Amino acid sequence: MEAFSDGVIAILITVMVLELHVPRGTHWSDLHQSVPTLLTYVLSFVYLGIYWNNHHHMLMLTERIGGLVLWANLHLLFWLSLVPFATGWMGENHFAKVPASAYGIVLLGAALAYYMLQTTIVRKQGPDSTLATAIGRDLKGKASPVLYITGIALAVVNRWLAIAMYVVVALLWLIPDRRLERAIAAVSTD
Amino acid sequence: MEAFSDGVIAILITVMVLELHVPRGTHWSDLHQSVPTLLTYVLSFVYLGIYWNNHHHMLMLTERIGGLVLWANLHLLFWLSLVPFATGWMGENHFAKVPASAYGIVLLGAALAYYMLQTTIVRKQGPDSTLATAIGRDLKGKASPVLYITGIALAVVNRWLAIAMYVVVALLWLIPDRRLERAIAAVSTD
Amino acid sequence: MEAFSDGVIAILITVMVLELHVPRGTHWSDLHQSVPTLLTYVLSFVYLGIYWNNHHHMLMLTERIGGLVLWANLHLLFWLSLVPFATGWMGENHFAKVPASAYGIVLLGAALAYYMLQTTIVRKQGPDSTLATAIGRDLKGKASPVLYITGIALAVVNRWLAIAMYVVVALLWLIPDRRLERAIAAVSTD
Amino acid sequence: MEAFSDGVIAILITVMVLELHVPRGTHWSDLHQSVPTLLTYVLSFVYLGIYWNNHHHMLMLTERIGGLVLWANLHLLFWLSLVPFATGWMGENHFAKVPASAYGIVLLGAALAYYMLQTTIVRKQGPDSTLATAIGRDLKGKASPVLYITGIALAVVNRWLAIAMYVVVALLWLIPDRRLERAIAAVSTD
Repeated sequence: MEAFSDGVIAILITVMVLELHVPRGTHWSDLHQSVPTLLTYVLSFVYLGIYWNNHHHMLMLTERIGGLVLWANLHLLFWLSLVPFATGWMGENHFAKVPASAYGIVLLGAALAYYMLQTTIVRKQGPDSTLATAIGRDLKGKASPVLYITGIALAVVNRWLAIAMYVVVALLWLIPDRRLERAIAAVSTD
Repeated sequence: MEAFSDGVIAILITVMVLELHVPRGTHWSDLHQSVPTLLTYVLSFVYLGIYWNNHHHMLMLTERIGGLVLWANLHLLFWLSLVPFATGWMGENHFAKVPASAYGIVLLGAALAYYMLQTTIVRKQGPDSTLATAIGRDLKGKASPVLYITGIALAVVNRWLAIAMYVVVALLWLIPDRRLERAIAAVSTD
Repeated sequence: MEAFSDGVIAILITVMVLELHVPRGTHWSDLHQSVPTLLTYVLSFVYLGIYWNNHHHMLMLTERIGGLVLWANLHLLFWLSLVPFATGWMGENHFAKVPASAYGIVLLGAALAYYMLQTTIVRKQGPDSTLATAIGRDLKGKASPVLYITGIALAVVNRWLAIAMYVVVALLWLIPDRRLERAIAAVSTD
Repeated sequence: MEAFSDGVIAILITVMVLELHVPRGTHWSDLHQSVPTLLTYVLSFVYLGIYWNNHHHMLMLTERIGGLVLWANLHLLFWLSLVPFATGWMGENHFAKVPASAYGIVLLGAALAYYMLQTTIVRKQGPDSTLATAIGRDLKGKASPVLYITGIALAVVNRWLAIAMYVVVALLWLIPDRRLERAIAAVSTD
């Protein structure tokens, strides 16, 4: 399952490159049109990197999987697979209001799917498992959807507030999940 | 062989994203044109997920492979590789009759190819193998082609009946193959 | 190296799907325009399947690799990566003469690259290795380039003769390399 | 991490094929328009091959990874993911000045990211690790950015000088890193 998910995320990251259309002219100024697409691309790249990173750490502490886990995982991959679509819409329209909201909805869907996957996996491992202890109260996981909803709503007022919100959540997660990393280190040295 | 198949299915799932063209305008109403494509995308995503899931379980109980199995596997991947093409044709034409039939033909081809692959693998493992016992009479595997053919024929009368048929088969399979899962669990605990 | 090559071939096989453009209309007759592309797609799919199959078997008997082997392998992947390009050109132009020759040139390049890779690997394993013995005189490997050159030349006279030649070579190889398969079986049972 | 990176590089190499647009006509002369794109494609293919090769060797000597290494790795993949974009811009514009500079900037970014990744990994393994000793003073790693900057600057004077510079760096690296290969061989025979 891990190899499959890694494969899908790897492909999604590179499929986004295809949305970076080659600029028409041959001057530096012709790159200007690509700047919003490029910035959106960077943000989505970071997001997919975060998901890959955390997903990877979570599966290292997962010992038992089953049919439900497989489908919860596919559900997460479904939302992540919409990222290139939302990235393209937002980037090509220079961060217009509606595409900026749509981008937030996709991020929200992915965050909820990740939370569901995590809950399904933890339930399968038991409440005293290393994973359950490592995740703990999961404040970041619970705060993210709230911040995304705020961002989606703020897009109506000012699109830059929405973008700022998405960047803030990305920064929150950019720091790899030390909880899981420490738990993995502890398990390996046992 | 498993890694290769996983790779191909992972890529097919994401290649379909490329058929999701970025909408022209920047209003919610501009997303309307993408709705049929999106729904078809969801259906095809679920189908590829089902194939990946069952294929994955089947290979876990496969001990011996050979040239014939490799080609039966490529034959399955061939039909699955036509899914993005059929998805695009049906989605862009708002579930028109002929594309809806064509979509069913691709699903039928994939179902028959899967059945052939399964038969080839079972023959290689022997009639008393864990896999042969786990699969048993395989009612779902035998019913699916019949349901697809019904769907393809119904598309001439009413396209929505065809779509309904494809959704029904997907739901039938959405429940992961408990037979194989139980057999895998039994083998692992031995 | 095997995982990487498998990945590249898996992606190439699916990248070709992107050359299958969704037909414009919604009638069966609208599929006619896609028929040549589809047939070319089938031929290229079979070719990539053959390469994957034989490459896979060869690497199973390879014990030592080095820098030269890695580059000989990338050289093969380079020619294979041109297959979707040649497929698209030939398919979209209904098997016109020049694209049919170009397709043959890409197949010829891949065949020579495979032969070079095989020679490099065999040299690394030594003349008495299982692989060297299994490959033997390699009549098929030596005949293929000659048949491709004949096909490329025949395209000037009649394009169908060229296509026929490519199909013949594919059929020659479609039978998996029993030599290697037998050698692998012998090694595994030792 | 290695499988994920291998996957991304494999996909990037093949995504570039999609920039090779099928020529319009069916004469050999119609291929002329594709020649610059094809040459750029070869150069980028070689570059991605070099990165895959060296990255692969480096990870074979890496024993400990952590959050920082994962992000340094994603940073490298980010720059590599811009290669198809830069390749397309340069190839479609027949090596015009500005795209030739932009191509160099992407190569420079990738080189610096690789250097940072290497430094991060070495620090994690310790100064007396096999990897640290094998890399040594890393003259090639330090010279490459200087040569890229020279190339980017020279593009203003004459674009062919820039291209020549990129080809020279590629040739410098084409020889696989014997230092690492020797170290891997030494470790394996211990």
